[in-house]
Amino acid sequence: MLAKPANLDNPDVCSRAADAPLFFASSYASMHLSDTHELPLGFRAAGVYSGVKRNAKKLDLSLIVSDVPCSAAGVYTTNRVFGAPIAWNRKLTPGSDLRAVAMNAGVANACTGERGDDDARQMASLAALTFNGQAEQVLVLSTGVIGAFLPMDKIAAGIDLAAKDLATSPEALLAAARGIMTTDTVPKVSGRKLTLSGKAVHVTGLAKGAAMIAPRMATMLAVILTDASLPAEVAQEILAEAVDESFHCISVDGHMSTSDAVLLLANGCACASPPRPDDLQELRTAITEICQDLARAIPADGEGATHLVTIDIEGAADRAAARAIARTVAESPLVKTAIAGADPNWGRIVSAVGYADVPLDPNQISLWINDALIYENGAPVTIDEPRVSASIKENRETRVRLVVGRGEAGTRFWTTDLTTEYVRLNADYRT
Amino acid sequence: MLAKPANLDNPDVCSRAADAPLFFASSYASMHLSDTHELPLGFRAAGVYSGVKRNAKKLDLSLIVSDVPCSAAGVYTTNRVFGAPIAWNRKLTPGSDLRAVAMNAGVANACTGERGDDDARQMASLAALTFNGQAEQVLVLSTGVIGAFLPMDKIAAGIDLAAKDLATSPEALLAAARGIMTTDTVPKVSGRKLTLSGKAVHVTGLAKGAAMIAPRMATMLAVILTDASLPAEVAQEILAEAVDESFHCISVDGHMSTSDAVLLLANGCACASPPRPDDLQELRTAITEICQDLARAIPADGEGATHLVTIDIEGAADRAAARAIARTVAESPLVKTAIAGADPNWGRIVSAVGYADVPLDPNQISLWINDALIYENGAPVTIDEPRVSASIKENRETRVRLVVGRGEAGTRFWTTDLTTEYVRLNADYRT
Repeated sequence: MLAKPANLDNPDVCSRAADAPLFFASSYASMHLSDTHELPLGFRAAGVYSGVKRNAKKLDLSLIVSDVPCSAAGVYTTNRVFGAPIAWNRKLTPGSDLRAVAMNAGVANACTGERGDDDARQMASLAALTFNGQAEQVLVLSTGVIGAFLPMDKIAAGIDLAAKDLATSPEALLAAARGIMTTDTVPKVSGRKLTLSGKAVHVTGLAKGAAMIAPRMATMLAVILTDASLPAEVAQEILAEAVDESFHCISVDGHMSTSDAVLLLANGCACASPPRPDDLQELRTAITEICQDLARAIPADGEGATHLVTIDIEGAADRAAARAIARTVAESPLVKTAIAGADPNWGRIVSAVGYADVPLDPNQISLWINDALIYENGAPVTIDEPRVSASIKENRETRVRLVVGRGEAGTRFWTTDLTTEYVRLNADYRT
Repeated sequence: MLAKPANLDNPDVCSRAADAPLFFASSYASMHLSDTHELPLGFRAAGVYSGVKRNAKKLDLSLIVSDVPCSAAGVYTTNRVFGAPIAWNRKLTPGSDLRAVAMNAGVANACTGERGDDDARQMASLAALTFNGQAEQVLVLSTGVIGAFLPMDKIAAGIDLAAKDLATSPEALLAAARGIMTTDTVPKVSGRKLTLSGKAVHVTGLAKGAAMIAPRMATMLAVILTDASLPAEVAQEILAEAVDESFHCISVDGHMSTSDAVLLLANGCACASPPRPDDLQELRTAITEICQDLARAIPADGEGATHLVTIDIEGAADRAAARAIARTVAESPLVKTAIAGADPNWGRIVSAVGYADVPLDPNQISLWINDALIYENGAPVTIDEPRVSASIKENRETRVRLVVGRGEAGTRFWTTDLTTEYVRLNADYRT
C-alpha cells in the first residue's frame, strides 16, 4: 500500500507550492521544480521541430533514450476508443527490456485501423535505430489534432534530428517537455533527488495537458524517469497507485481523451539492485509527489482558466465516496462558473454533493471556501460575503473544503473554473 | 409496459414540431400546443404576483385546484439534498384524495430543516382554505433563489389572491404556467384532447425549467392534469414511465437540482370509470407525449443556448447502454461547444461515446450530423464540411445520430449547445 503522500494532509500545500521557486516566474501555470530538473542517470533526451506543427518556433517531436534496458510501466486511457500508440504500448508494458520513448505533437495518431498501427510501429522502429535495437523496445506517444494520418516523412526526419540532439542536460529535458505541448502554455517538469542506501537517485517527470481541447483533441501525456532499479511488476504497481493519487484526481472538462498515457521508466543506472523496503517507500512517495506536481499543473494551465480549484473532501465513508463527491463538485459547470464569478455559492456546491450518488445526511454537510466557513451542518452561516468573494477574486487558487460527516476518508482533487474564454476557444476557433 | 411513443421513431419529429402552430410565434423556445391548451374538466387555475419576485410584471405564485378529489402521482429529484416541498409531496403521492397544487417562484423553499417543513405545510394549509379541505390534500412546489426562507406573509397574501382568480380559461392555465417561471423566457404548456370510449378527455401539462441556473438555483417543475379517471397506483406507474421517456432524457448542464418534481393529477371529471385497456394505452401515450413536449421545451429554452440538440442512439445492446451513450455525448462540454461553433467534429462525439462506459467496438460506430454521414464504421468520411457546418449554423436544431452496431435498442435525448452567454449568465451576474 502506498502511504498517504505528505501534501494530501498538508493544509499548507498551496502556499508551499506558491513559495517554491518557479521555473517560469512570470507564468501562473509554471511548475516549480522542487529539488531538481535533472535527467536521471543513463537517460538522454531531445525535443525538436519536425514540421508537423505549423509554427516552426514550436517543438513537436521528442525522444527519450536510456543507455541500458529499463523496466517500464504504463497507465492508459480507459476510453474504449483509443489510438494506435495506446494499443502498441499496452503490449509492451509492464516490461523489462525497454529503451526509449518516441513522442510527437501536432497531429495525433488517433486512428484505430491498420495504417495507425503501422505508423506507431514505424515511429518505434525509427527510434530503435538510435540504439541499434528493436521496435519493441520503444514506447510511442502521440498528441494533437485528430482526423489526419501522421505525416511519416516529417516524423522520420524529426526522429533522425532528435537522435542527433540527444543530451543529458536540463535543457534537453526541457526541450523534450516542450516537444509534446499542444495548447499548453508552459512545459511541465517536476523532479526529486533522493538518497537511497547512500546513493543519489533521481526521479524526474514531464507531462503535457491543458484539457481535452481545441483545435480538435488534446491529451494528457506524462513520462516519469528514474535511475533507481525497479522490477517491471513493481514499477507497474507503484505507477498505478501514484496515478490514482494524482492524474485520476484532476478534471478540466470531464471529457476523456483517446490518447491519455502515463509511463514510468526505471533504468537502474544509479543503483543496480532493487531498493530495500524503506528505500522503496521513499521512492514511491517521490513518484507520487511528482505525479501530483504534474497533475496539478494541468488544471493550473487549463484552457481559459482563471482559477485552479483545490477540492478537499473529508469525513467520507470511504475513499471511493470521497472521490465521487469531489469529482461531481469539480465537474459541475455551475460550481465552475460560480468560482469564475468569485461567488461563494454554497447552494451550487452542496446540491452537487447531493447528486454524487453517495449516501449522506444533508444535515451533516459543512463547507469552507478558502478560509471561510460558509455552510455548517446543513445550514448556511452568516458570512462577510464581499470579503469571501474578494478572497476568490484576488487569488488564482481557490480552496473548497467539504466535510460530510460519514467517516474518516478523504481525498484531494483539482479542477479549473469555467470561463467564457474556454467556450470561445472551443467553439469559435473556426471563425 | 408503455408502448414506444410514436415520435421516438419518427424521423420527422423535428420538422413536424417546427410545422406545428406556435403559441408565441416570435420565440424559438415557444411550445406548440398540439391539440389544446384547455384545462381538463373540473380543474381551475390561477397565476398571480405575490411580491416575492422583484419585478412586479412577473407572476410568481400559482394555484391549481380540482373541484373533486384527484388521484395524484409524483416523480422527484434523486438528489440526496432536497427541499422541504419534495419531502412533503413524497408523503402524499401516490394518493387518491388530493385537491390542489400550490406553487411559488422567486425564492425556493430549498431548506431541509424545521422552518422549511413548516413553510411547506403552511403553503398547503393556506391553499386548502380554497376548498375547505386539509393541508394533506395539497401538493407544494417551490422554485427560485436559494439561501433565504420564504417570505410567508407575501406567500399567504398571494395564495389568497390566487384563490380569488381561479378560473377554467386557457388564460388562467397560461397564468399558472407563468407563475412558476424563473429564468425561463416563455411559459411551457402542452395538451392533448382524446376520445376515450366516446367521451372527450383532456390531458394538459405545464412546466418550467431552463437549466440549473442563475441567479442561484433553478429547478425543473411540471404538472400534468387530466380529467380521466386513474387509480393512484396506475397514475404513478404511467407517470414514472412517461418521465423516463421525457424528463430523464434531457440535460442542459448536468447539474441536478434539489427541487425537481413532476406531478400527475387525475380527477375523473370527464369519465368517472377507469379507462378500458385500449383507452388506457391511448392515455399513456398522450401523457408521455406531453411530457416529451415539455421536456424538449426545457433545453430549447436553455440558458444562453443557440441550438437545441437532438441525439438519437441506435443499435445499442439495450436501453440503458443507449441512454448512457446519449447522456455522455449530451454532457460533454467539447461536443456542446463544437455545436455552438457549427463544427461537425466527429472526434469529440466519437471520443465521448468511448468513455460512456458501455462495451462497444470502435469499428462499428457510425455518425450523422443533420443529414450528413460523417463517420462510418470507425473511420471518417470525406464530407463537404462547409455545407455541414452551414446546416448547423443556419438551424436552431441540430440532429446527432449515432449507430453503434451492438443490438437493436435506441433512445432519443435532448440537450443544448454551450455558449459564452451561458458562462456569462452564471459567472458574471454579480458584476
